[in-house]
Amino acid sequence: MMFWLNGVERSVDDPQLSPLDRGFTLADGLFETMRATNGVIFRLDAHLDRLCIGARILGIPIPPTLRDHVAASARAAFAAGYVHASVRLTVTRGPAPPGLAPPPHSAPTIALAISPLSPPQSPRPIVAAMASARRNEYALTSGIKTLSYTESVLALAQAKLAGADDAIFLDTSGHIADATASNLFAFIGDTLVTPALSCGVLPGITRAVVLDLAQTLGVNTSEREIPEAEIALATEIFLTSSIREIAPVVRISTTAIGSGRCGPLTQKLIDAYAALVREECGA
Amino acid sequence: MMFWLNGVERSVDDPQLSPLDRGFTLADGLFETMRATNGVIFRLDAHLDRLCIGARILGIPIPPTLRDHVAASARAAFAAGYVHASVRLTVTRGPAPPGLAPPPHSAPTIALAISPLSPPQSPRPIVAAMASARRNEYALTSGIKTLSYTESVLALAQAKLAGADDAIFLDTSGHIADATASNLFAFIGDTLVTPALSCGVLPGITRAVVLDLAQTLGVNTSEREIPEAEIALATEIFLTSSIREIAPVVRISTTAIGSGRCGPLTQKLIDAYAALVREECGA
Repeated sequence: MMFWLNGVERSVDDPQLSPLDRGFTLADGLFETMRATNGVIFRLDAHLDRLCIGARILGIPIPPTLRDHVAASARAAFAAGYVHASVRLTVTRGPAPPGLAPPPHSAPTIALAISPLSPPQSPRPIVAAMASARRNEYALTSGIKTLSYTESVLALAQAKLAGADDAIFLDTSGHIADATASNLFAFIGDTLVTPALSCGVLPGITRAVVLDLAQTLGVNTSEREIPEAEIALATEIFLTSSIREIAPVVRISTTAIGSGRCGPLTQKLIDAYAALVREECGA
Repeated sequence: MMFWLNGVERSVDDPQLSPLDRGFTLADGLFETMRATNGVIFRLDAHLDRLCIGARILGIPIPPTLRDHVAASARAAFAAGYVHASVRLTVTRGPAPPGLAPPPHSAPTIALAISPLSPPQSPRPIVAAMASARRNEYALTSGIKTLSYTESVLALAQAKLAGADDAIFLDTSGHIADATASNLFAFIGDTLVTPALSCGVLPGITRAVVLDLAQTLGVNTSEREIPEAEIALATEIFLTSSIREIAPVVRISTTAIGSGRCGPLTQKLIDAYAALVREECGA
């Protein structure tokens, strides 16, 4: 793993964060997880746009050099031999005295960790479980990628205990929302449907790419509320995230989805997505 | 401020946390904020019991020496001149490689920060605003004090922008829940009412003490759902937390509560609470 703190490369094994960092004490910050191929981060601008929207809402100043720093670091990791890499960018409000109220002036912490990944392979089919808890579509932080991930950590741990690979959340109104760190898509009738952003889900970068790709392939798409019961009508379901890309859900608890294998539309989208990454990041 | 990391006293100004600490990357941890007087932490066992319940749910091992460490550190801070102090204990799953799934074995991070406080004074009356967002009573982490505090940070910042001192949340079903870092009590009819734990609120340590004190004073108490509209019937409202103790809410937005001053029952409870602290922590 290569690591940079506030723009300076450091050993990740060195303890180097302040115990007063509000990212550590209050999850007062944001993050993005991106995928780099050949030193190029796929959809870097979309990730940084989302980060900046969150930072504006939280009132965390983003240094104007951030884009250059992240892009240059991904190139440096490629030069060090990381052909495929995950790029985790964390931005917090920085160190501050105790208390919930943000300090009047803050010096954000920018932590960038780049880890090697194996080359993309045929996606491993996913068995999902329904989470026993619900996403809060009424949260102020709904739709921004804050550091408050305890709920997803716990839901994933519970799903794994139940023998599943991931958990699917409903929102508090009973609509399908997302998985612990992925958006969800379902092919229902002749339409590729994904939960609307009003269902408490993140505006996923891969989600947006997949909606575009589907339209390019001539597939109807819809962002809307999906009542839980409607999921039984889905002939294909898949999850999307920047690291996972597109991963077929073949079973939810004991119920097989469609044929119980990666469906044909999912496979078409996986192929189109891989072609797009090749085009934007080099072969 | 005095600071201990994993039981060892350190300067809080030294950077000393791993950037891979899951408390920093995923809010994967818990905390308690306590009040010490004369080196004695008020209701330390209740705080540690709550922490241990959360730790069991998250699967974070708590070292058996934790209680002794926290109590001894509070005594050390008193010896250094901290007559009144806030004691912030943070326990995270510790450093781990990237990814949402917890590592099979974890070495928790135990961070303890003790800061001097001024002696308790007549509580400053609080003007509250209604938060535009809602607590999630359907969360797996509802009722445990995780590090996921971004929502409260943002709600407090928005309340302050609106000229208020704190924000009051409803739960997603429309019942009164709590404030950004305090429980809420309302005197309605002849009963002191506080939202039930099913409304997505924390089992506050001060909340439990106040329920006991009220009963000792011969006041009826009830933990139940409070529909938002019912708050208009309250003749007194106050907030409780370990640092704030008992603080009267005199206005919600433009609506005065009762006389618009600290009410007589609230004042009785403030006095009884102060007497209890004197009894347990020395004069």
